[in-house]
Amino acid sequence: MTTHPIAVAPASRPRMFEALAVAVSEGGGDLVGVDEAQALIWADPASVDDFPAIIARGTGIRWIQLPYAGIEPFAHHLDREHLWTCGKGVYATPVAEHVVTLALAGLRGLHRYIPATEWAAPIGTNLVGATVAIIGGGGIASELIRLLTPFDVAVRVVRRRPEPLLDAVVYAPADRFEAVRGAHLVVIACALTAETTGIVDHRFLAAMDPNAWLVNVGRGGHVVVDDLLTALDEGTIAGAALDVTDPEPLPAGHPLWTAPHCIITPHVANTPELGLPLLADRVRDNVARWCRGDELIGLVDPVAGY
Amino acid sequence: MTTHPIAVAPASRPRMFEALAVAVSEGGGDLVGVDEAQALIWADPASVDDFPAIIARGTGIRWIQLPYAGIEPFAHHLDREHLWTCGKGVYATPVAEHVVTLALAGLRGLHRYIPATEWAAPIGTNLVGATVAIIGGGGIASELIRLLTPFDVAVRVVRRRPEPLLDAVVYAPADRFEAVRGAHLVVIACALTAETTGIVDHRFLAAMDPNAWLVNVGRGGHVVVDDLLTALDEGTIAGAALDVTDPEPLPAGHPLWTAPHCIITPHVANTPELGLPLLADRVRDNVARWCRGDELIGLVDPVAGY
Repeated sequence: MTTHPIAVAPASRPRMFEALAVAVSEGGGDLVGVDEAQALIWADPASVDDFPAIIARGTGIRWIQLPYAGIEPFAHHLDREHLWTCGKGVYATPVAEHVVTLALAGLRGLHRYIPATEWAAPIGTNLVGATVAIIGGGGIASELIRLLTPFDVAVRVVRRRPEPLLDAVVYAPADRFEAVRGAHLVVIACALTAETTGIVDHRFLAAMDPNAWLVNVGRGGHVVVDDLLTALDEGTIAGAALDVTDPEPLPAGHPLWTAPHCIITPHVANTPELGLPLLADRVRDNVARWCRGDELIGLVDPVAGY
Repeated sequence: MTTHPIAVAPASRPRMFEALAVAVSEGGGDLVGVDEAQALIWADPASVDDFPAIIARGTGIRWIQLPYAGIEPFAHHLDREHLWTCGKGVYATPVAEHVVTLALAGLRGLHRYIPATEWAAPIGTNLVGATVAIIGGGGIASELIRLLTPFDVAVRVVRRRPEPLLDAVVYAPADRFEAVRGAHLVVIACALTAETTGIVDHRFLAAMDPNAWLVNVGRGGHVVVDDLLTALDEGTIAGAALDVTDPEPLPAGHPLWTAPHCIITPHVANTPELGLPLLADRVRDNVARWCRGDELIGLVDPVAGY
């Protein structure tokens, strides 16, 4: 009988370790130590420094499953000797839901109403019927488009690959200014790469309409903070809702905390509580595929870095 | 050639008057004074005191179109001698969108994150996959169910008529405690009648789960405020988001402004700016139906009062 020796490491997060070990067994894998393993399920997104030493011990490892969708902490470890997968797509639904939350909050004025202690004049606009530009054409964009279907929005997606994405109009990265022009909502939902670092700069913000909201659920590094602060201060955009910042946690006293029309949530589009069951589902599914010899889900391109 | 003499009155809100006069013409009606009219389009929701005098002048009037969906200010004027219609259903989409806004804000913790000026621990839950109880089975409920379709929610509707409503499980008003038990979100979206005044009382709130949010887009009179304040203070429900209060505007210093986990928006589920074009569409449509002799939309039952 064929065995499928798979390791889960490190054990620094007991709840995650246990959930993923159960997922390996349920998927048909045989739980072993790193030394004997042909595959490794990495069980602590914050434990990056231990990674090379553990990998070095696992000379038989051919496949490595990384947690989470954004893998930049591990990017410099990627190589062509291993098959790499990550959690991309796993967290798309809660993240897309958070985009809808932030978009509605901004467009309908909750940033003004929630802190108020007296009745105020009406502000805000509908999301229904709006034009939405999404930077990034991955799992979050797909889920967001799905969630927004009944809102009758017109969707534009900026992505490298020219393939269609559902009903969205697809723009190349070079045409991003055209994509955001006239949009009521601009969503940053791409991976952080050399190409996308600082993509939300003064030129990008200038292309946005004065009544448009920016929502960032990508990475803090996508935004040039000084340019955003200027746009918010001068009112050249309607507002910004940021679930990610650079650095994180955003320190008390940082000007973003008190910038006008700026909503900050502390990287909670997907929380560990919401995410772990979803990651365990993905690991179980991928282990089963590995055992059957099927293609894995969430493959990482070591060159592109996502 | 048949004419269809229709009056628009009063003229106290010039923008509304003009938009509805245009709608009458576009619908095929002939704009006349009240004395000559067979139908009257009422053009100021706040002008209730002038109503009897103007009606008395219009002895030929057979149909009266009221603005807005909630017509309780006009309720004591309703009679069986006229055909009455109101704006019910017109504002369902923006109101349902506001319900989604408030529900997501509460469930995902924006009432805590928005006022914060430092990074906080994650709180909140997803709306995706939740159980939603809606009190009221009218146009808002239908629109809300439609907007929430991609969120894979289980919907329960409390309504008088036992007819099914989309995929919702329908409960009779007497079974309302059963309907809210176990729901993550409870939405008040019914008309204010003798039967529904104070429907959200201590028994109703006790039936709600400790992790459940209450959203009220009906009328302030649906809620027994002291009972709600107790539930919020004691944490027997997760929170409340109120777009309507009693009285309105809610006076500064009212305890709801500072109650824990309480979001208040100043009756903006549908704002005049968003609503007027939608009301004008309805008036144009109803005028065209009147001219053709077809059944009107938004008929009011003078006995039920909605």
